Amino acid sequence: MQLLDGTSCSKEIREEIKKDVNSIVARGERPPHLAAVLVGNDGASQNYVAFKVKDCKEVGFDSTTIRLDETITEKELLNKIEELNHDEKIDGFIVQLPLPKHINENNVILAINSKKDVDGFCPENVGNLVLGLPTYISATPNGIMELLRRNKIETEGKHCVVLGRSNIVGTPIAVLMSRNTAPGNATVTMAHSRTKNLKELCLSADILIVAIGKTEFVKADMVKLGAVVIDVGQTRVPDSSKKTGFRNVGDVDFGNVKDKCSYITYVTGGVGPMTRASLLQNTLKAHQRR
Amino acid sequence: MQLLDGTSCSKEIREEIKKDVNSIVARGERPPHLAAVLVGNDGASQNYVAFKVKDCKEVGFDSTTIRLDETITEKELLNKIEELNHDEKIDGFIVQLPLPKHINENNVILAINSKKDVDGFCPENVGNLVLGLPTYISATPNGIMELLRRNKIETEGKHCVVLGRSNIVGTPIAVLMSRNTAPGNATVTMAHSRTKNLKELCLSADILIVAIGKTEFVKADMVKLGAVVIDVGQTRVPDSSKKTGFRNVGDVDFGNVKDKCSYITYVTGGVGPMTRASLLQNTLKAHQRR
Repeated sequence: MQLLDGTSCSKEIREEIKKDVNSIVARGERPPHLAAVLVGNDGASQNYVAFKVKDCKEVGFDSTTIRLDETITEKELLNKIEELNHDEKIDGFIVQLPLPKHINENNVILAINSKKDVDGFCPENVGNLVLGLPTYISATPNGIMELLRRNKIETEGKHCVVLGRSNIVGTPIAVLMSRNTAPGNATVTMAHSRTKNLKELCLSADILIVAIGKTEFVKADMVKLGAVVIDVGQTRVPDSSKKTGFRNVGDVDFGNVKDKCSYITYVTGGVGPMTRASLLQNTLKAHQRR
Repeated sequence: MQLLDGTSCSKEIREEIKKDVNSIVARGERPPHLAAVLVGNDGASQNYVAFKVKDCKEVGFDSTTIRLDETITEKELLNKIEELNHDEKIDGFIVQLPLPKHINENNVILAINSKKDVDGFCPENVGNLVLGLPTYISATPNGIMELLRRNKIETEGKHCVVLGRSNIVGTPIAVLMSRNTAPGNATVTMAHSRTKNLKELCLSADILIVAIGKTEFVKADMVKLGAVVIDVGQTRVPDSSKKTGFRNVGDVDFGNVKDKCSYITYVTGGVGPMTRASLLQNTLKAHQRR
């Protein structure tokens, strides 16, 4: 078993980006600039945004955090987005999800200028991904592809089973893995809550990508010997032994599954850091496109 | 074995559309108006466009065919598209593919206003399809979904294998079949030229959708007893016994496969008429949206 190390792989990516930023600045241009819109006081969201800001700083990007009150109206948020769409100093921006319940997330995503949509959530960017055109691939699927690419995992002709069909992870990674690219060219099965014989299906997977948000759902008896297992899940579970009061648990029963795998990610230092690095890659791309 | 009759099913759709057009006209509005851009003199393309015009006439739509010389430059074609994008009298339009080799099809598709893109080829509409947002679903996948829906084919929890990963058929139908909709909710496998053990995979399919453009590729020993088989293929094969000099051959060896199936489409009167009806549905939707 070999651990797919998202921490070192993402560090490699950040180093590359840092070099690019140095060249940009050396030729007298301003560095890439990411803005993050944070609505309300959700603890996890605040953490995520803080990490993004820290990442920006590390690679030499400018960053701006726009904090908005939980009670902001949808209209006010849309106005802020329109402002960011036209702000020449900002290359790309994200709106941290989830949003308060009184705000329609789709309306917000649809309002983002696709050229600045570094999360890759808006229809035009999703469509470009499907069509194989230049785009911002959303951060988690892009991070998984980078992890496979940089670890030289063979995917062509392999059976890749994707558990979960979300717009943000399951569906785009399934499409990416099926395309005529490297990594890619896998035979991909999209599985979800209505799938029958899930255990049997998982057992047929050479590559198993799990993004369902159910802690330790994938057990050892569901994994083929020698499989590559990518665990996207990250659920906070109360844990009084931790300073934070919680620990992150993945969708895969890592302790029992790992010995069956050729490669596997762990809930910490796996897909998470790759997702963060992908946002930086997209922001750099947004800067280059302008 | 029951034949999935695209001819009668598409007739039903056209009747529904005709009623809607009558209501539109009765309240004093102009009927929906489809324009088709035809570049060059390709026989098959001319036929397709002629069928589309005929369909429009039958349901009471206005239609306009814009014939352009094979030697037109990409710039001239893009200008024509820009004109159609802004023509208030036209609800939707299509550019018949393929285009002459000196014209970049992607540039052309990207130039079409997504609100008038009744073929559903542009990134925004493809993205909306993936995200489950209102869109124009491209005609063939939409036609297949209608055929399944109107024939009350159970798809939930079934294993659907899609052969072929094209942007126009394979990939979108795979995504549609996987979504939480009815029809839909299938476990979907996307297979293609790099897929290994294709025969075994096809044998595991409850629903087999074939869109690879290889005549009679799917043989009886690749089909599970009781499967639903949808044949999207339609290749012209020379046949001197026909007035036209050719016959259409599907991707499925219909003669030998049919007796194993619960439902199957035939190359003629199957997916083809459903595709044509879908374009009318999209054009009606374009009219309603304006």
